[in-house]
Amino acid sequence: MSTITISAQAVANLREQTGAGLLDCKKALTEANGNHEEAITILRKKGAASAAKKAERATKDGIIESYIHVGSRVGVMIEVNCETDFVARNEAFRIFVKDLCLQIAAASPLYVSRAEVPEAELAKEREIAAAQVQGKPPAAVQKIVEGKLEKYYSMACLLDQPFVKVPEKTVKEILTEQITKIGENIQVRRFVRYQLGS
Amino acid sequence: MSTITISAQAVANLREQTGAGLLDCKKALTEANGNHEEAITILRKKGAASAAKKAERATKDGIIESYIHVGSRVGVMIEVNCETDFVARNEAFRIFVKDLCLQIAAASPLYVSRAEVPEAELAKEREIAAAQVQGKPPAAVQKIVEGKLEKYYSMACLLDQPFVKVPEKTVKEILTEQITKIGENIQVRRFVRYQLGS
Repeated sequence: MSTITISAQAVANLREQTGAGLLDCKKALTEANGNHEEAITILRKKGAASAAKKAERATKDGIIESYIHVGSRVGVMIEVNCETDFVARNEAFRIFVKDLCLQIAAASPLYVSRAEVPEAELAKEREIAAAQVQGKPPAAVQKIVEGKLEKYYSMACLLDQPFVKVPEKTVKEILTEQITKIGENIQVRRFVRYQLGS
Repeated sequence: MSTITISAQAVANLREQTGAGLLDCKKALTEANGNHEEAITILRKKGAASAAKKAERATKDGIIESYIHVGSRVGVMIEVNCETDFVARNEAFRIFVKDLCLQIAAASPLYVSRAEVPEAELAKEREIAAAQVQGKPPAAVQKIVEGKLEKYYSMACLLDQPFVKVPEKTVKEILTEQITKIGENIQVRRFVRYQLGS
C-alpha cells in the first residue's frame, strides 16, 4: 500500500465543508486516496454513526427562542436542548434554532415527533386512508395505508417535515447534521405556534 | 347655579393625565366645579362604566407578541385581542402587550383568569386552606378559606396578579384602564411561558 501525501490545503477544504475535526479529515482523505468527494462520504458515515451515539446523551441546557412573523399574526416559541451552556451560546446552534422557528411558522407542525401523535389521531388517519382504498387486495391496502401514514407524519411532525430551507432533507436529517457539526446531542423539547384567532 | 370658567390649560392637563376625550374632560371639570382631582374621579367612574360596556364587544383582531429574557432561559408568548386592525397597530396597545409579556415572565401566572382554573385545582386549594384553619368556628373558617383562595387567584391568574410595574393595581385594573384609554375592548386570549428544563 503506497502512502498518499495529503496536502494541508485539502484537509482545510474538507474541514471547512464538513465541520469535522482535523484528524478525522486527514484520516478520511487518506482512506479515500485523496479523493475529496469520497472523503466526505466517509466522514458522513462516521458522523452519522457518532451523531446517533450522541443522540443518547442527556440534554440539560439549551435555549428558548421565539419568532413573530411580520404583522404579528403568527408567532412561534420553541425550547431546544443541548448538553452544555457552551453550545447554548454557540452562534451555529442559535441560527439552527432560529431556522426551526421559521420552519414551524411556515409549515405549522402539530407535534415534535411521531411519538407525540396521540393514538386516537393515528387511528383516525388509518381509518380515513383505509376508506380511500376500499376494494383493493389486503396486501396492497396495508402498503397504501402505511404510505398515507408516512405522508401524515411528514405534515404533522416537525422532525418528519421537509426542511423549508432545504426541502430535499427532513428536519430530522438537518438536526442530525447539526449534532455532528456542533458535537453535542440536540433535542427539540417543545414548541408552540399561535395564529391570531385560531 | 353659577357658570364656572374652565381654562383650556386645565382641560389639556386633564386630558394628558386621563387620556379621556376633550368634551368629556370639559364636562367632568364643569361638574367638579373646576376641581382637578374630582374631575379625575368623575372621569374614572364614567370610564369604568364605559369600559365595562366595551368589555362585552367582540375582539377579532389583535397581535401575537413574545419576550425572551436575557440568557434565553425564559420565554413568553401571548395573544391579545382587540376589535380592529387599527388598534392592533396602535403604539399604546403594543406597549401594553409587551408589558403583559414582562409581567408573565416575572410573575409566572398559570392561567389568564379565574374562569380557567380547573375545578380540581380549586378543590385542592380549598382543602389545603381548610386544613390550615382547623378548630376555628365555621363562620371564621369560611371567611379565612375564601381569603386564602383570593390569595391563590392573585398568584395563579394573570388578571388577578399585582401589575409588576404598578404593584398597587391588578393587571385587570390596568387592562380596564387600557380599554378606556384605547377605546376598544381588549382581551388576553392565551399565553404560554417556557422555562428551560421545567
